[in-house]
Amino acid sequence: MHLTIVNPNTTASMTRTIGEAARAVAAAGTVIEAVNPDSGPASIEGYYDEVWSIPGMLEEMRARPASDAFVIACFDDTGLDAARSLMAVPVVGIGEAAMHMATLLATKFTVVTTLAVSVPALEHNVHKYGFAHRCARVRACEVPVLELEDPTSDARARISAEIARAKNEDRAEAIVLGCAGMADLAAALSAEHGMPVIDGVAAAVKLAESLHALGLKTSKAGGYAPPRPKAYRGRFASAGVSTDG
Amino acid sequence: MHLTIVNPNTTASMTRTIGEAARAVAAAGTVIEAVNPDSGPASIEGYYDEVWSIPGMLEEMRARPASDAFVIACFDDTGLDAARSLMAVPVVGIGEAAMHMATLLATKFTVVTTLAVSVPALEHNVHKYGFAHRCARVRACEVPVLELEDPTSDARARISAEIARAKNEDRAEAIVLGCAGMADLAAALSAEHGMPVIDGVAAAVKLAESLHALGLKTSKAGGYAPPRPKAYRGRFASAGVSTDG
Amino acid sequence: MHLTIVNPNTTASMTRTIGEAARAVAAAGTVIEAVNPDSGPASIEGYYDEVWSIPGMLEEMRARPASDAFVIACFDDTGLDAARSLMAVPVVGIGEAAMHMATLLATKFTVVTTLAVSVPALEHNVHKYGFAHRCARVRACEVPVLELEDPTSDARARISAEIARAKNEDRAEAIVLGCAGMADLAAALSAEHGMPVIDGVAAAVKLAESLHALGLKTSKAGGYAPPRPKAYRGRFASAGVSTDG
Amino acid sequence: MHLTIVNPNTTASMTRTIGEAARAVAAAGTVIEAVNPDSGPASIEGYYDEVWSIPGMLEEMRARPASDAFVIACFDDTGLDAARSLMAVPVVGIGEAAMHMATLLATKFTVVTTLAVSVPALEHNVHKYGFAHRCARVRACEVPVLELEDPTSDARARISAEIARAKNEDRAEAIVLGCAGMADLAAALSAEHGMPVIDGVAAAVKLAESLHALGLKTSKAGGYAPPRPKAYRGRFASAGVSTDG
Amino acid sequence: MHLTIVNPNTTASMTRTIGEAARAVAAAGTVIEAVNPDSGPASIEGYYDEVWSIPGMLEEMRARPASDAFVIACFDDTGLDAARSLMAVPVVGIGEAAMHMATLLATKFTVVTTLAVSVPALEHNVHKYGFAHRCARVRACEVPVLELEDPTSDARARISAEIARAKNEDRAEAIVLGCAGMADLAAALSAEHGMPVIDGVAAAVKLAESLHALGLKTSKAGGYAPPRPKAYRGRFASAGVSTDG
Amino acid sequence: MHLTIVNPNTTASMTRTIGEAARAVAAAGTVIEAVNPDSGPASIEGYYDEVWSIPGMLEEMRARPASDAFVIACFDDTGLDAARSLMAVPVVGIGEAAMHMATLLATKFTVVTTLAVSVPALEHNVHKYGFAHRCARVRACEVPVLELEDPTSDARARISAEIARAKNEDRAEAIVLGCAGMADLAAALSAEHGMPVIDGVAAAVKLAESLHALGLKTSKAGGYAPPRPKAYRGRFASAGVSTDG
Repeated sequence: MHLTIVNPNTTASMTRTIGEAARAVAAAGTVIEAVNPDSGPASIEGYYDEVWSIPGMLEEMRARPASDAFVIACFDDTGLDAARSLMAVPVVGIGEAAMHMATLLATKFTVVTTLAVSVPALEHNVHKYGFAHRCARVRACEVPVLELEDPTSDARARISAEIARAKNEDRAEAIVLGCAGMADLAAALSAEHGMPVIDGVAAAVKLAESLHALGLKTSKAGGYAPPRPKAYRGRFASAGVSTDG
Repeated sequence: MHLTIVNPNTTASMTRTIGEAARAVAAAGTVIEAVNPDSGPASIEGYYDEVWSIPGMLEEMRARPASDAFVIACFDDTGLDAARSLMAVPVVGIGEAAMHMATLLATKFTVVTTLAVSVPALEHNVHKYGFAHRCARVRACEVPVLELEDPTSDARARISAEIARAKNEDRAEAIVLGCAGMADLAAALSAEHGMPVIDGVAAAVKLAESLHALGLKTSKAGGYAPPRPKAYRGRFASAGVSTDG
Repeated sequence: MHLTIVNPNTTASMTRTIGEAARAVAAAGTVIEAVNPDSGPASIEGYYDEVWSIPGMLEEMRARPASDAFVIACFDDTGLDAARSLMAVPVVGIGEAAMHMATLLATKFTVVTTLAVSVPALEHNVHKYGFAHRCARVRACEVPVLELEDPTSDARARISAEIARAKNEDRAEAIVLGCAGMADLAAALSAEHGMPVIDGVAAAVKLAESLHALGLKTSKAGGYAPPRPKAYRGRFASAGVSTDG
Repeated sequence: MHLTIVNPNTTASMTRTIGEAARAVAAAGTVIEAVNPDSGPASIEGYYDEVWSIPGMLEEMRARPASDAFVIACFDDTGLDAARSLMAVPVVGIGEAAMHMATLLATKFTVVTTLAVSVPALEHNVHKYGFAHRCARVRACEVPVLELEDPTSDARARISAEIARAKNEDRAEAIVLGCAGMADLAAALSAEHGMPVIDGVAAAVKLAESLHALGLKTSKAGGYAPPRPKAYRGRFASAGVSTDG
Repeated sequence: MHLTIVNPNTTASMTRTIGEAARAVAAAGTVIEAVNPDSGPASIEGYYDEVWSIPGMLEEMRARPASDAFVIACFDDTGLDAARSLMAVPVVGIGEAAMHMATLLATKFTVVTTLAVSVPALEHNVHKYGFAHRCARVRACEVPVLELEDPTSDARARISAEIARAKNEDRAEAIVLGCAGMADLAAALSAEHGMPVIDGVAAAVKLAESLHALGLKTSKAGGYAPPRPKAYRGRFASAGVSTDG
Repeated sequence: MHLTIVNPNTTASMTRTIGEAARAVAAAGTVIEAVNPDSGPASIEGYYDEVWSIPGMLEEMRARPASDAFVIACFDDTGLDAARSLMAVPVVGIGEAAMHMATLLATKFTVVTTLAVSVPALEHNVHKYGFAHRCARVRACEVPVLELEDPTSDARARISAEIARAKNEDRAEAIVLGCAGMADLAAALSAEHGMPVIDGVAAAVKLAESLHALGLKTSKAGGYAPPRPKAYRGRFASAGVSTDG
């Protein structure tokens, strides 16, 4: 299958890291294509950045009509509902993927994300997905997203310290890493803390492969019905779906 | 005060209707400016249209730094969290406004919106705002948004019929009109059905005036902190906030 | 409009403070009348006091059939549902008003009230209104209600200290002041802590004005239907609604 | 033990029916005293009537310091929290009693009450007690409370018809009778419909006996702490608790 | 009445303690029979032990068709739904019993159980029963079940220390003891901490007596319908219900 | 990988159907072993049957220490928590698997199961997993489990009719088949109704493969800690875990 992973931010080095994390877990027959839009924010930290990453992300998806499934590689699950409306094939967000997986392994998990500004958006997703009674807490380690790319940063140590607090204070049984940029840390942190530490990129790749293997597609019977044909104006004219279909 | 109402879709005639509805309830000292972006969908029907209306909407807001408050005139409360992050002054969505008002008047309300494709997004908002136990149902009357502008349509009759069903089947005590384009129908439908029928545009104008009069502004202490300075690339380069401030 | 604010306790000095706070935010055309019953407790601290304040409060309302709206100036929203049943015009509680406003400005708020004995009643209201996922905590600063009237008290310092704790421990983005007697402190505390601090009296005045301006009245279609005509006996005989009307 | 059952309305014939229902299930050593206040509404139908029944009810309780427990015999559990604050011994409401018992016998129950005006108050109690996922529906049979006393009424037939609907439409496995005046119908309706039909008066008597037998009393450590000593003014002066005691 | 209390573990000394606790609160006419299965775990600590205790427990019940009611004396309410399906008479779990009683006495309670491994199962029950907003926390004092039988253990001190923490940190107004083996400690701990401390064994005895006295039986109209006749194979062949009834 | 699928009932023909459904979707490197216990009920219909299927199911698991993951092939997710405690490798229930997958494809799903007696247990699972706001309804088509094996039955037609009702009455966007015995119907029913129809066996196989591929195991840090060493008596003596480990 052809699986497109869209990093909604515009930082190509992060896209490469994500692509590598995806390929590391992909099945034999899965071709991973990791892309990012040309336009938009270099990282997604809070509600404002989210908005500007979605148009480019959707265009990357629409430009790949032959892709068998898509993964959105931002832990906020940025633009997930819109992407499901646009595409017929499955679309999986890394945030939801990691949380679903966590509930299969533990009675209670804690999310460790980058900055406090993102916590309310993630708490909202936890509530939206139904996991409020399973998510002990959403914690921020106060490491900006792009610092995760910096080998001289003490980011890993700060994430590890936050995991230790989650274990002691939240009684968390599993950890969900709350940023695509943490994808390469999961295994080592899991070994260090003796509990499942889940990376959303890897989780989403497996869920997307699973849905494809099962022949399941996004339902078009309700909220994810295709966009209605209508005029789109100005610089977004091309985003509109024509009456011709 | 200067109150900017942004209709996030690009249909100017609908913006005019919204502006008139707003002016009809505005306080003496309130100057209403109703605008819409140049770029984006002609109407917002479902998750996909939402996404493409937000960038233009935010630009209209950013271009008005002297505005004392903003109203988002789409019942989906499109881009509300991002707008709150961007602006220091209050931002009110017409969906939340109408629902908050309804809970002050009735123990249970029903939302009557346009198309079934929008129902899940609205149900999600109901859940997000905490009104799941107060909202009896979200109903669609299957009238497309722009048909509300068409004087030859039987839209009003279909909305009225749906209100009657809400009263009988849902035991609704109040009705929330689920589209900015229904703003001019509220009073007549309320008289016809003998119960409060709430238009979100009017409700949001009063809430925005209220917050301004109280000197209250959006909290910058958490999820609505200002966008972090960072590089924005490509055609959205101008959306980024510079390090200078 | 004529807006009656009923302080349900019998402390006239507190009624004056509330009236002044209301007038300070009222619109040009709003005539504020602040009243309190002759009979009942000097302050409302816990479930028992609530009960004895409601009959007098309802009589004050019933004696003002020409009032365009009512505000109940006790943070417990004492007798709110009964008042809505009795009166045709809007009735707003200061507790609900402040909480609704808070959700328009912040993703999470903390309530700072007077005594621990009131916390369960307020938590119940939070749950009833649907804000359990938006209210980080209900805190008590252990200042009795009437001490708020005492200029020599350190009440303000204790409230401020509790707000600091709410910011640090609860990650609150806004504060709701949990007593009508704190009405005059909101602005200074907001400036001190750099986040919205919301007074319910002011919030309720604006909501009541808003509902009136919109021509909206309490729904009589369900739980707030007028009291049924029936015999009331003994010293409450006059509270009954006669069959004649 | 001495168990006082307070019918909060002023209809003595209904108090007698309630007393008989209570005595029919009371344990050998339980002395049942059924009382009602002299002042207040003849029946409780909606929020307004509730308010006026509570002062008299509390006075009946306060006048019986030697009673070992109290039952509030109105399905709205009128004034329950205030009564728990006032008295040291257990206080049980018939609404909560019946619902608790129902959850021990069935996975889902429906409440059948008198008038639609009471449904929101009962739905609120269901939500407050935590049984929203166990209560299939609150139904009204549109029989006024006092008509239950009228032997020529078709009240029983209408209640039975509503139970049949609950079974078929709600998949209810048990029925909770939503009015103290229905106490004498439970056994026959249970036999007729082949499922548990629970009367709150009987349920509350047994729960009150149980709490007493276990030596359990209302907690005074939080929301049910005794009323604070303070001035009560006017005709309610005697309701205040003095500093001496 | 004949009331059978089944301790689902196989430790006879614990069964005796439970039986004594039950007899201490039973009504004059109640004959208590405390039993345990021959097969299964010596104590129930976690999900795995639960499973192996249920078959033996059900067999003890099935062997007593004349019993008027049953109590399951494990705080996990092990096998409760299955037991209700099997028996026509009431079945009460000690966990649910204690929690129901707690909500009649306090606005908020904390559970103090034995080991951390049991906390998720108990939190699940709290959620299932609807008490998530009433249960402040489920705490473990890290005392293994059978150590409660050991007079030289410091178990009582550790439980008492945990209750103190519940009072200070959770603002708990009542304590629910989370293990049948703590039955004999409730009264002393209640006196020590000045708040209700509830033992589930005693609570369940009174609820079972109550249901029996009211003539109420488990509903057979839905989820607790009798087991369908079908083949049971192998060593569990005798557990099957034959077509003959 | 070696994936063991345990059908907890004792009907070997159903185990074969399940095994075939599993192999049809398994990845190239997955060896599927479908087994069932020798002892226990021929089908699982309600709470009672569940209990008797779990011991045999756990023994089948314990006898396969080299298996890389397990699937529990009963839609009730029978014994899931106990199995997770016992085994170190991932264990997935077909009920949870199908529901998780459904939420990735649709905003709202309906479960179509066999008999009404199972509906409450499934509703409980929906609530436990957090999907109460995503599951429109749990419906029963009143086809007994073993009739699904009978080629002359009209089971398929009745299931299809129930799906049609789910689409029209519940506004379901996807269907979850509520019995392992329906595994072979999913594709055809999906084509017939034009919406995703999800079989839990297939879904669970892919989730188990995914967890294994990611190197994730059940957390042993809390509720799923290994069974504590202790004495197991009587015919279940061998189920106990010895102190030796």
